[in-house]
Amino acid sequence: MTEVLTTMRLEDTKTLVTSELDAYCAERIHKAAQHGTGYVVLWRSIQRVLLSGGKRFRPYMLFMAYQAYAKHTDFGVVMPAALAQELIHFAMLVHDDIIDRDFTRYGVRNIAGQYEDFYENFIKDTHEKEHMARSSAMLAGDVLISEAYRLIGTVDVPKHDVAKALEIMSQAVFDVVGGELLDTEAAFINDALGNAKNIAFYKTASYSFVSPITMGAALAGANEDEIVKLQHIAEKLGVGYQLRDDLLGIFGNEQDTGKSNTSDITEGKRTYLVEQFENLASAEQKAEFFAVFHTPTNSEALLTRARDLLYESGAKAAVEREIEEYYETALALIDSLSIEDQQKQLFYEFAHKCLMRQR
Amino acid sequence: MTEVLTTMRLEDTKTLVTSELDAYCAERIHKAAQHGTGYVVLWRSIQRVLLSGGKRFRPYMLFMAYQAYAKHTDFGVVMPAALAQELIHFAMLVHDDIIDRDFTRYGVRNIAGQYEDFYENFIKDTHEKEHMARSSAMLAGDVLISEAYRLIGTVDVPKHDVAKALEIMSQAVFDVVGGELLDTEAAFINDALGNAKNIAFYKTASYSFVSPITMGAALAGANEDEIVKLQHIAEKLGVGYQLRDDLLGIFGNEQDTGKSNTSDITEGKRTYLVEQFENLASAEQKAEFFAVFHTPTNSEALLTRARDLLYESGAKAAVEREIEEYYETALALIDSLSIEDQQKQLFYEFAHKCLMRQR
Repeated sequence: MTEVLTTMRLEDTKTLVTSELDAYCAERIHKAAQHGTGYVVLWRSIQRVLLSGGKRFRPYMLFMAYQAYAKHTDFGVVMPAALAQELIHFAMLVHDDIIDRDFTRYGVRNIAGQYEDFYENFIKDTHEKEHMARSSAMLAGDVLISEAYRLIGTVDVPKHDVAKALEIMSQAVFDVVGGELLDTEAAFINDALGNAKNIAFYKTASYSFVSPITMGAALAGANEDEIVKLQHIAEKLGVGYQLRDDLLGIFGNEQDTGKSNTSDITEGKRTYLVEQFENLASAEQKAEFFAVFHTPTNSEALLTRARDLLYESGAKAAVEREIEEYYETALALIDSLSIEDQQKQLFYEFAHKCLMRQR
Repeated sequence: MTEVLTTMRLEDTKTLVTSELDAYCAERIHKAAQHGTGYVVLWRSIQRVLLSGGKRFRPYMLFMAYQAYAKHTDFGVVMPAALAQELIHFAMLVHDDIIDRDFTRYGVRNIAGQYEDFYENFIKDTHEKEHMARSSAMLAGDVLISEAYRLIGTVDVPKHDVAKALEIMSQAVFDVVGGELLDTEAAFINDALGNAKNIAFYKTASYSFVSPITMGAALAGANEDEIVKLQHIAEKLGVGYQLRDDLLGIFGNEQDTGKSNTSDITEGKRTYLVEQFENLASAEQKAEFFAVFHTPTNSEALLTRARDLLYESGAKAAVEREIEEYYETALALIDSLSIEDQQKQLFYEFAHKCLMRQR
């Protein structure tokens, strides 16, 4: 892969990055053996879960931005940064699962889950076992955050570009930790959640979109003006992606999305869609909706009615309109980038995939 | 401070670094306000606990090594790295406290403890409240690990030296996570703990001694040979420091050390001293000792007898001898460094402080 790609297939990135992650884990397992077999267990757990899922969207974005400015598709030089994106993401998932007390990820036992199984023979008390399993999973996340930075430090590009990449990564972690905290506290502190778009920015857009896209460009030596534009594009894609996700979570076809289209209502997820409903709906509509929202009901009639209310109030249309505005803004910004037309095409296609998807 | 120091006072470093940490936290609190008041709470908690204690030993070591090779004592350029050392250390303490379910640090409520107080008004269930408090403390540690790397990335020295510093930091985190894991598992998995010196290396020497000392030299542009020598010196100081700590934990004067000199026995801490006892003691001595070890006794007679057995078996002398060997080796290695004599003097004094202290 040395010519400039005019089409980049997500599937190819996924295969490539997954194989690199596998090799990376194997190398770390080898290192961990010097510390003791217990540390090998930890790295094997990381390897097992890390390779069980993940779309490798972040490496794709990093490569897409890198090749636009580097003008070649030899991704070897930025591969450590692509892996770093996956490791930070995975570390956050591991810690997120601890907060949510989940023991499953990608359909397999997650790190805490694997430790729960491992400690089964050693700790009888369930509560104690869970605590120790989560503690070990916490340590796994810790070392992965650190490893992400180690990998970025090894990228062989000029100092200024590595420094920029480190700054981008740390801004993303600063944002996602804040977003995660506010989102978690929103479950029990009424006024904790600023607003849903704010959370979408800090919890999703910053570390999942802004970080990979701007890091890819920075490592290719793109100038500050371009990086700022890319940041705005990535913000639109990231927040828009989340708004689309919220819509699909309620109006999507379960066969298409692979997710329940009722749980956001029954679990009372305060999305931007719900915020818009609160702004637009009549008192009667609100009373009817919030009688169902955040209530463990199985009634198809009630759930359909809740969905209809989001539609009738104009909330759905308002969110759709906003996503479309994001899309238009993103396209105009992409158009203004100082990159070749065929590179812009990749960005256009990716923006469409993020914002206009039906699944 | 621009002349080469011939004496460096730990107290001065402490004052300087503590004030820089305060300013750093203030800047982060300001940034966190953009995310939401909840994030400000997190950073205020970090600031409160971070400034409540800590000897700033790691920045001292970093400065000591830096000035030896930079040949000046303008520490401004490496201050971010010194702060990074404190942040990584603090992050590890925060997560260590979560594992140990402690809510106190430096005599004040730790991060989890402060969150427990904060969530008091919002969460009634004690177990739930503790979980959420620990979750928020986990997030605090996460962002601090990340921030440590951000700070290193800002150090204004040649690329090679920053890359080396990043590598040093990540090796230290890789080691300390492994050490922490093995140490934690040793409480319930019999063969988890390789040996006490191994743990002392991974849990203490690597990140508390090797990392600050080699990083200081690396950031001053010291060559690889010197860094390897410094690494060996730091290993001796770090493991020796821990062995001395173990001795003082049992034979020390409580007034001098400020710590209980019985809890290591009653809690059954498997130190190198205890390992040596197992190697050297007779079957009768072992039977007598292990009847008291790891037993919640208050009997002064039994505890004094346990202490006497460590002495009579020759275990105490064996550990003393080993520390002295470490000291001699460290001095010889310091002597071989390509630095000025007055700089060597600082290293000699520091080695004495670490290994030959009585408190």
